[in-house]
Amino acid sequence: MEVLNNHVTIRKFKNKPVDPKLLESILYSGTRASTTGNMQVYSVLVTQEEDRKQKLAPLHFNQPVAVNAPVLLTFVADFNRFSQWCTMNKAKPGYANFISFFTAAIDALLVAQNVSVAAENNGLGICYLGTTTYNAKEIIDVLNLPKLTFPVTTVALGYPDEKPDLTDRLPLEAVVHHEKYSDYSEKNIREFYAYKESLTEMQQFVKENQKETLAQVFTDVRYKEEDNLFFSEKMLQVLRDQGFLND
Amino acid sequence: MEVLNNHVTIRKFKNKPVDPKLLESILYSGTRASTTGNMQVYSVLVTQEEDRKQKLAPLHFNQPVAVNAPVLLTFVADFNRFSQWCTMNKAKPGYANFISFFTAAIDALLVAQNVSVAAENNGLGICYLGTTTYNAKEIIDVLNLPKLTFPVTTVALGYPDEKPDLTDRLPLEAVVHHEKYSDYSEKNIREFYAYKESLTEMQQFVKENQKETLAQVFTDVRYKEEDNLFFSEKMLQVLRDQGFLND
Repeated sequence: MEVLNNHVTIRKFKNKPVDPKLLESILYSGTRASTTGNMQVYSVLVTQEEDRKQKLAPLHFNQPVAVNAPVLLTFVADFNRFSQWCTMNKAKPGYANFISFFTAAIDALLVAQNVSVAAENNGLGICYLGTTTYNAKEIIDVLNLPKLTFPVTTVALGYPDEKPDLTDRLPLEAVVHHEKYSDYSEKNIREFYAYKESLTEMQQFVKENQKETLAQVFTDVRYKEEDNLFFSEKMLQVLRDQGFLND
Repeated sequence: MEVLNNHVTIRKFKNKPVDPKLLESILYSGTRASTTGNMQVYSVLVTQEEDRKQKLAPLHFNQPVAVNAPVLLTFVADFNRFSQWCTMNKAKPGYANFISFFTAAIDALLVAQNVSVAAENNGLGICYLGTTTYNAKEIIDVLNLPKLTFPVTTVALGYPDEKPDLTDRLPLEAVVHHEKYSDYSEKNIREFYAYKESLTEMQQFVKENQKETLAQVFTDVRYKEEDNLFFSEKMLQVLRDQGFLND
């Protein structure tokens, strides 16, 4: 399936708006994704206004893509709408809890991926912003999100102004397990990561960051334990504030 | 995009195996999905053996689809492999925390949706099993999943032996918000849910369950607060046991 197999992340977009009809059709394809009990417990926030993009950009650590993409789509786990419908229909909603958050997050993420595939199938390029959960609290404020909602990911969207090569992936056998998870031997790990480690680009990465190994670039620079602990606490607190965690 | 727009959930499969080459090609398309920092912090567990399917079926509440699909794919948030690679490369992994779990869950869910789209594009049918997070603990045992992994969803896969109609969706404007989340008025909610409530199938659903409203079927029968609270506690405990929640 070409559109899936040729996916590359786009970080540079043309200064060309996305036609509203096209955007609508892509979002429609998103809503055709599987959804738990057909409840559709998600919302999509479309950001196109310049000043709102300027407010979101720092929350995505000013990644250039957050600034220069014509459209930002924030995918939100949403039990607010469904709960309101319940209350209006003599039904007591019971979704102010963690499993409901996670159910809604799954819903939102399947929509996000469908939207991404539909976008690429229409000549657009996309970039996922993994920063959404880090600054969920501030994003909630900018987007006016009510209780029982939580932003789970953001997709930047627009016409590609670059044509990057496919990025490397681990061999399929590194991520697929038949029948039982077979834990990895040192030998497995060496083999599976050998190609990635051999890439000029990765070696450059190690050098630039003055590290000894590629793994250290991840643990010491890109995804540090202290940051992870900080953002874990923060995310759990926001889940609590949004009504999804009662302890 | 036809394959996205025509998606229907398949719950009845032909007694016809999925060719290993086809399965491999579908899984490959899965791995082309976006992944945080290209870390690929997920694994896919393929279940085809009859006795293991029999062990998984009750954990999916014996949904017929869990028994009669030739293939079950369990998508797992996985920081185990990556952490082992770090440790072997003089890097201290810092991923035993909640944000890392959620990052890995996003990764796993994007792969799941790509795999589903690729499967349907090849004439296969799929059904998501939302029960995976309810019984994650028991699924971990059956699939031998180590610490720093967590099963987030399951997709049942096979050749369709039914041709269901498209299911209803809320109007696009019910789930899409431009610039800011505009909270719903009673009038909005009435309008957005009117079509769903009008469907014969839904009215049948209300009658069968001896309820007054469709919403009550959800709150009193299908997704009850007491169950949600029980499974929330259970899921949080499993996250703790798997090393993703330290409090």
